[in-house]
Amino acid sequence: MTAKEELEPFFAPKSIAVVGASRKPGKIGHEILRNIKLSGFSGNVFPINPGAESILDFKCYENITKIPQRIDLAIIVVPAVDTEAAVRECGEKKVPAAIIISSGFSEVGNTDLERSIIEVAQKYRMRIIGPNTFGIFYAGSKMNATFGPNYVLGGKTAFITQSGALGLALMSWTTEERYGVSAIVSIGNKADVDDADLVDYFSLDESVKSILIYMEGLKNGRRFFESAKRAVKNKPIVVIKAGSSQRGAQAASSHTGSIAGQDIVFSAAFEQAGVMRAESMTQAFDWIQAINENPVPEGEKMVIVTNGGGIGVLATDRCEKLGLSLMDIPADLKEELRTLMPSFGSMRNPIDLTANADDEVYRKMVSILLARKDVHGVIALFCQTANIDPLLVGEAIIASSGGGKATKPITAAMVGGHLSQVAYSRMLEKKFAAYPTAERAVDGMYALIARRRELESRK
Amino acid sequence: MTAKEELEPFFAPKSIAVVGASRKPGKIGHEILRNIKLSGFSGNVFPINPGAESILDFKCYENITKIPQRIDLAIIVVPAVDTEAAVRECGEKKVPAAIIISSGFSEVGNTDLERSIIEVAQKYRMRIIGPNTFGIFYAGSKMNATFGPNYVLGGKTAFITQSGALGLALMSWTTEERYGVSAIVSIGNKADVDDADLVDYFSLDESVKSILIYMEGLKNGRRFFESAKRAVKNKPIVVIKAGSSQRGAQAASSHTGSIAGQDIVFSAAFEQAGVMRAESMTQAFDWIQAINENPVPEGEKMVIVTNGGGIGVLATDRCEKLGLSLMDIPADLKEELRTLMPSFGSMRNPIDLTANADDEVYRKMVSILLARKDVHGVIALFCQTANIDPLLVGEAIIASSGGGKATKPITAAMVGGHLSQVAYSRMLEKKFAAYPTAERAVDGMYALIARRRELESRK
Repeated sequence: MTAKEELEPFFAPKSIAVVGASRKPGKIGHEILRNIKLSGFSGNVFPINPGAESILDFKCYENITKIPQRIDLAIIVVPAVDTEAAVRECGEKKVPAAIIISSGFSEVGNTDLERSIIEVAQKYRMRIIGPNTFGIFYAGSKMNATFGPNYVLGGKTAFITQSGALGLALMSWTTEERYGVSAIVSIGNKADVDDADLVDYFSLDESVKSILIYMEGLKNGRRFFESAKRAVKNKPIVVIKAGSSQRGAQAASSHTGSIAGQDIVFSAAFEQAGVMRAESMTQAFDWIQAINENPVPEGEKMVIVTNGGGIGVLATDRCEKLGLSLMDIPADLKEELRTLMPSFGSMRNPIDLTANADDEVYRKMVSILLARKDVHGVIALFCQTANIDPLLVGEAIIASSGGGKATKPITAAMVGGHLSQVAYSRMLEKKFAAYPTAERAVDGMYALIARRRELESRK
Repeated sequence: MTAKEELEPFFAPKSIAVVGASRKPGKIGHEILRNIKLSGFSGNVFPINPGAESILDFKCYENITKIPQRIDLAIIVVPAVDTEAAVRECGEKKVPAAIIISSGFSEVGNTDLERSIIEVAQKYRMRIIGPNTFGIFYAGSKMNATFGPNYVLGGKTAFITQSGALGLALMSWTTEERYGVSAIVSIGNKADVDDADLVDYFSLDESVKSILIYMEGLKNGRRFFESAKRAVKNKPIVVIKAGSSQRGAQAASSHTGSIAGQDIVFSAAFEQAGVMRAESMTQAFDWIQAINENPVPEGEKMVIVTNGGGIGVLATDRCEKLGLSLMDIPADLKEELRTLMPSFGSMRNPIDLTANADDEVYRKMVSILLARKDVHGVIALFCQTANIDPLLVGEAIIASSGGGKATKPITAAMVGGHLSQVAYSRMLEKKFAAYPTAERAVDGMYALIARRRELESRK
């Protein structure tokens, strides 16, 4: 069985049993069942609760072995002391995959119990995610098997998180910010399935365009970096590696029981494997967004267009800092652009359209630039002015770049107040890599250039 | 006359004349008059327009000299070719201050005209802001003498901008993001009044708690750095200095005609003067927000409280990166906190309250920490979980820190989806330094530590 086949039941189960399902709203054993019901999952669902007839209209069973059909995935929500028996019963039922939500294991020093559970699971060839997780969301199966928010926006990124609370918060964040996710896996204590397994899986999953990992530590570094190196051929991996400081590493250790390891070793290994390490949550999401919504550029020659000199300069500074090269505008392109430019605009790169540039000017400008063979990417900047409508400019930028089907990468910044923020948010909804500041639009483009360099280095 | 007295008419005029006022909505000469009218300015307003009886209910005059009372501030909106005559008439009327909105001067190479206007003004001892500006907003006089958005939220920062478009966009941004500003000055070509004058002025202005400058270049560097060094004694100055890259400097030069100069020289001079240089717009506002809403800490010992291990670790990493020291929690404080902590929480710093911590736990925790002599500042982090209300947690953090009258600095991060973002936004409204990510809450606290170090170094 391939790794892909082995993990398939976690993400595309035909039947799920919730072991430790509860009738009480607010209880984790109830909330998970409720989320599965409400998320639109089309398979069969079986709550296991010896004292109930049915919960949320699902018929209850006393015991998983009593269910009269095959179970692909068990979700175990019983107290820690009862997990071993639950895993054993799942094994007898030949369940191939179980998520252990329950906590109280290695994260609080209870490593023996964790080890014995895994021994039982291995005896039955059952794969385990957890313990100590909030579950899995997988857009492809309309399955929200978590105790987090019910509604999660679908998207193109598989998000693997070692922190439960941060993962739950980001579940809500990705929906609110319109990024969306294709999968969220709360990986918990990684007693069995770990980052390497999931990277292997998602690298072959066509619904996933990029992989984002929040990582505090690794148990088997070598295995992860080998998996990552292979996976990066297919799709980019962005990592937020916490515990880079000494005190942070200590905190990570008391938090998930993981050893954060020497940060400098991690950095070197990430680089060697082609994994992009983000410095902050904001940067990670800025990168992911540009990567998800754009093709990899065919070269490195970038052009900035702006209606404000100031943000043009800020973006240019950022480009130089990140090693992005702005092309010199060739004479024939200048000729082509001349009619669009006011006499006091600048045709140097950044191209300064000046404050009167409206949606029509943006539309034409972006179209001309993207149609040029010698331009490999465009960073479009807009500063809210008194008389130009940011919403129309946003629409024009999207339309002229192929309406989400761009053949060249483009990122945009919509800087200003309410209308700019609405424009920016609508662009995100339409799967366009938009940002609220010029610097962040450049950061997004940087991720695409970095991706190109990684792929080139492998040729 | 002191510099303060000389610039007073720009910010607290009793009477304003708009030279070149227009009846046509959309025209700059109309929009400025409209903004002055709608902003609640209580002084007298005189549109100058020889062809109109009245505009927006203000009686028109053919010429500024015809106005039968003293004029403190003239706003000149006539075409460039007519500005010299307008300035001369203002001089004859003994107007002490004029803002020249009109463009078409040194920014397009027309330096001779600019110079001759200033010569005329100097003859009459009139001070000039501009030319090529969008005007001034000053909360203390309820005066919006700009052609930007009408409604601008009042606040504690004087914002000086060399870029018009960026300044206009940020006018809207500061309102939408609930930062607010005490003043916005579009400084234009700086033909007369420059950054140094304004820094002198705002350093003595009690409505101003911090000064934020978007700068592309300086004409008289020495003067600016001397003013800045003096002003920083009274209040912090944050600068976004664009043109740090070679191409960026070129763009700045074509944009405002200023020479950006060697970036490394600027950096050294900023540091020597005690001016904080931000790397991005986001960072500048994150700093300003923490500075405006908090006292300077009495020491450097910081404590992080969190309900999520992950964001705790990320914040800790960021602290170490920025040189912020997290204190070791002493035994007696641990004793005090014990009742608030679940058994599996961590009393190391970051203090991990774990996911069950509700508003009551935050309220007590923050109160205890802020009451301690040995704690100099608190960074409170909240990760949205399934069952805790971010709005209540936000309220609790504000209440326990003195409801905006904190005696010690505190910053907070509210990480998550819709509810966290609402909570964050409400905290901003209540003048609390809140952020959407843990890293940014640390960045805010960093600004306060940097401020402390600056003041200590001057002792």
